[in-house]
Parts: sequence; C-alpha cells; structure tokens
Amino acid sequence: MDIQAYMLDLGRAARAASRQLARTDTAQKNRALLAIADALQRDSDALVTANQADLAAARDAGLEPAMLDRLTLSAAGVAQMAEGLRQIAALPDPVGEMGEFAYRPSGIQLGKMRVPLGVIGIIYEARPNVTADAAGLCLKSGNACILRGGSEAIRSNQAIAACVHEGLREAGLPEGAVQVINTTDRATVGALVTMTEFVDVIVPRGGKGLIARVSAEARVPVIKHLDGNCHVYVDVDADLVKAGRIADNAKTQRYGTCNTMETLLTHHTVAAEFLPVIAAIYLSKGVELRGCPRAQEIIGAQVKPASEDDWFTEYAAPIVALKVVDSLDEAIEHINHYGSHHTDAIVTENYTTARRFLREVDSSSVMVNASTRFADGFEYGLGAEIGISTDKIHARGPVGLHGLTSQKWVVLGDGHVRG
Amino acid sequence: MDIQAYMLDLGRAARAASRQLARTDTAQKNRALLAIADALQRDSDALVTANQADLAAARDAGLEPAMLDRLTLSAAGVAQMAEGLRQIAALPDPVGEMGEFAYRPSGIQLGKMRVPLGVIGIIYEARPNVTADAAGLCLKSGNACILRGGSEAIRSNQAIAACVHEGLREAGLPEGAVQVINTTDRATVGALVTMTEFVDVIVPRGGKGLIARVSAEARVPVIKHLDGNCHVYVDVDADLVKAGRIADNAKTQRYGTCNTMETLLTHHTVAAEFLPVIAAIYLSKGVELRGCPRAQEIIGAQVKPASEDDWFTEYAAPIVALKVVDSLDEAIEHINHYGSHHTDAIVTENYTTARRFLREVDSSSVMVNASTRFADGFEYGLGAEIGISTDKIHARGPVGLHGLTSQKWVVLGDGHVRG
Repeated sequence: MDIQAYMLDLGRAARAASRQLARTDTAQKNRALLAIADALQRDSDALVTANQADLAAARDAGLEPAMLDRLTLSAAGVAQMAEGLRQIAALPDPVGEMGEFAYRPSGIQLGKMRVPLGVIGIIYEARPNVTADAAGLCLKSGNACILRGGSEAIRSNQAIAACVHEGLREAGLPEGAVQVINTTDRATVGALVTMTEFVDVIVPRGGKGLIARVSAEARVPVIKHLDGNCHVYVDVDADLVKAGRIADNAKTQRYGTCNTMETLLTHHTVAAEFLPVIAAIYLSKGVELRGCPRAQEIIGAQVKPASEDDWFTEYAAPIVALKVVDSLDEAIEHINHYGSHHTDAIVTENYTTARRFLREVDSSSVMVNASTRFADGFEYGLGAEIGISTDKIHARGPVGLHGLTSQKWVVLGDGHVRG
Repeated sequence: MDIQAYMLDLGRAARAASRQLARTDTAQKNRALLAIADALQRDSDALVTANQADLAAARDAGLEPAMLDRLTLSAAGVAQMAEGLRQIAALPDPVGEMGEFAYRPSGIQLGKMRVPLGVIGIIYEARPNVTADAAGLCLKSGNACILRGGSEAIRSNQAIAACVHEGLREAGLPEGAVQVINTTDRATVGALVTMTEFVDVIVPRGGKGLIARVSAEARVPVIKHLDGNCHVYVDVDADLVKAGRIADNAKTQRYGTCNTMETLLTHHTVAAEFLPVIAAIYLSKGVELRGCPRAQEIIGAQVKPASEDDWFTEYAAPIVALKVVDSLDEAIEHINHYGSHHTDAIVTENYTTARRFLREVDSSSVMVNASTRFADGFEYGLGAEIGISTDKIHARGPVGLHGLTSQKWVVLGDGHVRG
C-alpha cells in the first residue's frame, strides 16, 4: 500500500467534501447525524463483536488493563454514542451565525459571519467512541474530517465508520465528509499532520507522548491539550465550608480527568483550621497526601514530603499535593509557574482578591468558589467537546462546535468606494 | 556573538515582561504609548539622520527603488508614527474585557475574559514605521514583543527602539516589553520562530519569500498573510453605475495594496453594456487589460489574452484581468479556486444572490456593493493593524488589538461542586 498516495486521496476527498459541507444547510446535517445514530444503534451487536475482536487482540498483545478499559465498547457505550449524536443534532448550528453589524464612518456596514475551518484531522488512541463524537462535531460545524484512531481499535473504528457512511449517504452527503483511516501504518500520522494543502487543523487526543509526537512533526496548526495540573487556592477570606466541599469535589469526584485538582494551596492564616479537616476527608477516601513542611507540621505524619517535582505533576491518581502559602501573590505565582494553564480556582469571599485571581491567573478556565471539575464542554453547555485546548491561539479551554469554526468579515454597502 | 544565547536572553526577558504587561492597567499602558510618541517626535531629526545612513548603505548595495521607497523615513513619517501611537492609546483596552456571562443548569455562572497572547515575534522588511506600529499594538494588547526588522533598516529601527525604551521606562514598564533585535544575523530569525517556550505567535510581514521561509521553519504558530488576489463580480442584477464606481475604485485607488482587485468578473448578460465603459476608465488611467476571449471580443484589441496564470496572479500593478462568466455559480467557483481567500465583492441588487455570495465565497472579507479597498484595519475600526491574516485559525482578515488576544473562561460560583 502506497501510504502517501492513499493519504493524498483522503485529503483531496476531504477538501472537496468540506466545500460542499460549508454550504450544506442545518436540516441536512441534522438528518445525517440522526441517520448515523440510528445505524449505530441498529448495528449495536455487530459493533460490540468488532470491539471484542479488538479486545482479544489487545489482550494477546499484553495491553495494560487501563488501556483495555478505554478500548471497551459495550452495548451501553454504543447507545451513548448514538445519544451523543442526537444531542449534537439538537445543538444550534454555528455555521452562518452573523452578528456585530455596525456602520462605519465611511458608510459601509461591517459585521461577521461564522464559517467552518475546512478539514480537521483528529488523531486519537483507544476509545472508539471518539470516532462517532468527532465525526458528529465536525459534521455539525460544517467541517470534513479525517480520523486516525489507535491501531488497537481499528476493527471497532471501521465498524463505526460504516455506520457513519451509511448515515451520510442517506442524507445525501459525500462519504468524504468523514473518513476513517483504514490502516494501522504509523506513516499515515506523519502524512496527515503535514498535508497543509488538504488539512486545516489537527486535534490530537491522547497521552502526552502522542501529543508531543504530533506537535513535533506537524506543519498543520495543532489544537492541543497538554497537562491538566489544576489548583484550588483556599484564601484567608475563604468560607471554609465551601472550601471543604470544593477541595473534596475537585480532587475526589474523579481522579483520572484533566480538570481534577492536583495541588491544594492554603493561606497560612487558615491552614491550621482547614488542613486537618480536608486531610481527614482525603484520608477517608484513600487519597495519598504529599505536602510542604508547614502542611506536614499541621496535619502530621500521614503527609509525605512533597518534592519540587510534585508541584509540576498531574497525578491522575488518588494523590494530592498540599502547600501552605503566605499570600495571594504567592498562590498566583505558584499556579502560573507550576501549573499547566488549564483550570484553577480560588475559594474566597473577598471581592478584590477574587477579581485579582481571575485577572492574574493565566489559565484557560479561572474560577471563584467552584470546583475545577466544571471545566468541560458538557458543563459549559457546548454539547460535546472535541478536546480541551491549553493553547492560547485560536481556541482555549473546552473546544466544541464554535472552536471548530472561524469568522469572516462581511461588508454591506450601497455602491460605497474608498475615498 | 552567540546568537542562540542572545535570543534566549531576549526570550526570557520577553516572557518576564509579558507576565507584568498582562497585569498592567490601561492608564499605565497609555502613558507608555504617549511617552514613546513624544520621544519619537522630539528625536525626529536623529531618526531621519539614522534613516539616511540606512538609505545610503542601501543605495550602495544596489537596492531597488521600490525598496528604497519603503525604507525611507521622513520627518512627516516620524510624525505619522507618533500619531499612530496616540491613536492606539485612544483605543479601548481589549485586555480584561468580560462578557457572555450566563447561568448554567448546575448553578455556576459562566463567561469569558479577554487576555493577551503573551509574547509576539514580528519579522518584517524595509519599512521602519512597523517598529513603532507593532510595538504600540503589542503594548496596548498587553503582549511583549520581539521585533526583527529588515537588515537594511537596522539603524532606523535601533533609533526607534531607543525612543520606545525611553517611553517604557518613563511609564515604569520593563524594556523587555519591546525588544528590537540588534543584529542583522539571519540566524536570529530561525531562533525566534522556534523558541516555543518564549514566543507564543509569529507575525511575518513582508513579501511572499519571507512568509514562505518563516512558515517553513516555524515551530511557533504563525499568523500570516499570503496573497491578496481579490475579485469584484458584476452580477446580472447589478446596478451598473455602482458597478462602475466599485470596479474603478477597487482597481485604481491604489495598485500596490493587498486589497486591490486583480480580476473583474462580469455576468455575460451585462458584459456588452458594462465592459466597454469600465475598460475606457481603466485605459484612461493607464491600466493594462488582459481578458478571456469573450472580454476581448466585447472590448476589442486593447485587451491582451489572459493566460491561466493571470487568474492566479496578484499583479500589484496597473494591470487587470477581465473574465466573463455565465452564472453566479461560475463566479463563486472561480473566486474560490483562483483567489487567495482575502477579499471579494459582488455588485448586485438581488437579495438571494447577495446572500449566496456572502455565504459561499470562502474569503476573510466578503462584500456586497462595496469596494474591496475597504478591507483594512483602519476602515474596519480596529485602529491600526498588525497585518491581514489569510489563515482561518485564530485570526482572519485584518488583525488589530483583538487579534492579539485570546479569551479565558471565567466561572463564578458560590461553593458549587459537580454532582
């Protein structure tokens, strides 16, 4: 198989489909989404069978349990994929949104119109549901997409792709609108991320290794998510009841998510009162405590010493780092230095302190008196999300339909010329 | 001189300054802008003298007259730079703008805040005024910048840099906020566009060669402007008086600008009436005509045959390509295929035709009954512009203060946790 030629074919088909999709009206896109959902649900047994073949091969290859878990697609998982597509169909169509029209002194009326980006390349690992989610988000936002799933999920992904193509055909849309790469050859990734003529943006979804590799090779712009090293800062003026709820929820509601808190910062004035309470909660849930010397002194021997590395670490595990700080300035400095610019929260009742935290913490989501766990596309009302961006260029934070679009300027005149 | 070490020093200083600038209030930024303007005006004679040394060296080196023209900085040019900075000071500060706050079903209140990008690298040629314009736009938008001007302008740029630094100092801002590379060594460009740790975005301003080189080498995201191959389409339902004014203005008001029309498309039904009129106007202004066979037939021997290449060409000269088309579809197809996705206009009185043109032409500015010459930052009310982007990612069209910012999500709660 000539990978370069294969990928160029995909690229050309995607570009052609993207031109058609950009003009496709909302109703037709929604028909395709619903038809794909129906096909997935109807083929549920076949999808689960394909997935079991992937799982068997993965077990033979000695994949880790966590990876097997992410790879698994149950009948309930299929139903969830279908439901996700129906939710995307129900979302407002961002394409063609117009606004901000105002007259300029020259007499022209200037506004903006939202447009698709064109062709999106998505590179992901394990989870087969990404195939349906990504296809749905790209389709609704008027973009063609080329999907490159993990090699361990290729049977599942091809089975899902068949349902996607059936739905596209039923709605009268070209199959080039959603193409799932049908080989596990890694050269396809290198080709995809360098086809600047045919691909407008790359979204890698997966571990740090994948994202680093994609970023290093890419010539196409990348919307990427690096670490989720999130913080909660309990201020001197915090309501400690709220602080306890938030620090508990941010750490323990789910350990593996990117918006989970990793380091809890506490103002020294309230540390003696607050830390023993929250430490007891964490210990009762089996969370390992690592702390600075002052946190150790207050809580006691259950706290292991935190190293410099701990402050930089996204544990994605039942471990929390505890640090006592002397001031808001020190908290902000710590977050901006050690954090990953993902999501950080302050607990405070002080207006000026809250305002400074919001302005000065350089993260994609900044919060007052709320759990970092809220930072996702569903909670933000974006419907689904294609990922969470820790970049500042283009999209920041959860990337939903709007993050997959751009805007063009619209000028309305009546024979106006420039003087 | 160790270029790598020198550039890393600039990068570190820029990153540190960017953190401070992001927190700097509007009044202090404006004080710096006005102090820079005053210093430029006061040092006008010295700036012109430095520029004359650049010009003498450029003449010795045999630079083309057009290049010498762009390089020239007169006393009036200095006054214009100063005035530009005062205009930037008068613009609203985009940093910290908040909006779109709405309650989510969970009870959190979700909105957005505008934030600087961080550190901007700008690579440009010839025109020394870019040094002051770029410094001003970056400063107002809370970004630090590293400027790499053309080697032919190094004396002028260093003289301007001295005034910028004086203004920064007077306003209590670090000199790292605006750094102008003080060597003509080309290795500085390679270093600048690959320092992903210290530079957040690169804006190349100059000829195609420069932009292609920067794009090929860059690891930092690039906001770039490629061609300006703009079109006016005179529809079957055009008001031909408006069409004449617009086609004249779009081509002849200035020949060298990127928003100048290069190809005029005319619906065949009105071609016999319209083309002789507009051709006479062009010929009276010394504009060379190149056309398709139908345009040649209608206008006559003054029209040279247009080749396939002509449709792709940004002449930036008194030359216009003329094509007769059979339909709106053919016009849209031509623009999307041969154009550069910059700025394209339709002249029509037909509502449905106008609506289709706006939606289906894939350009950063689309216009109805207005001259393409309106597509710039000043006419769009952005104040100055750092450039015009023909990309879709991040910024599209004229890039002013807002294009140099990003947005973060802001979540306001009252002890909210995720269920």
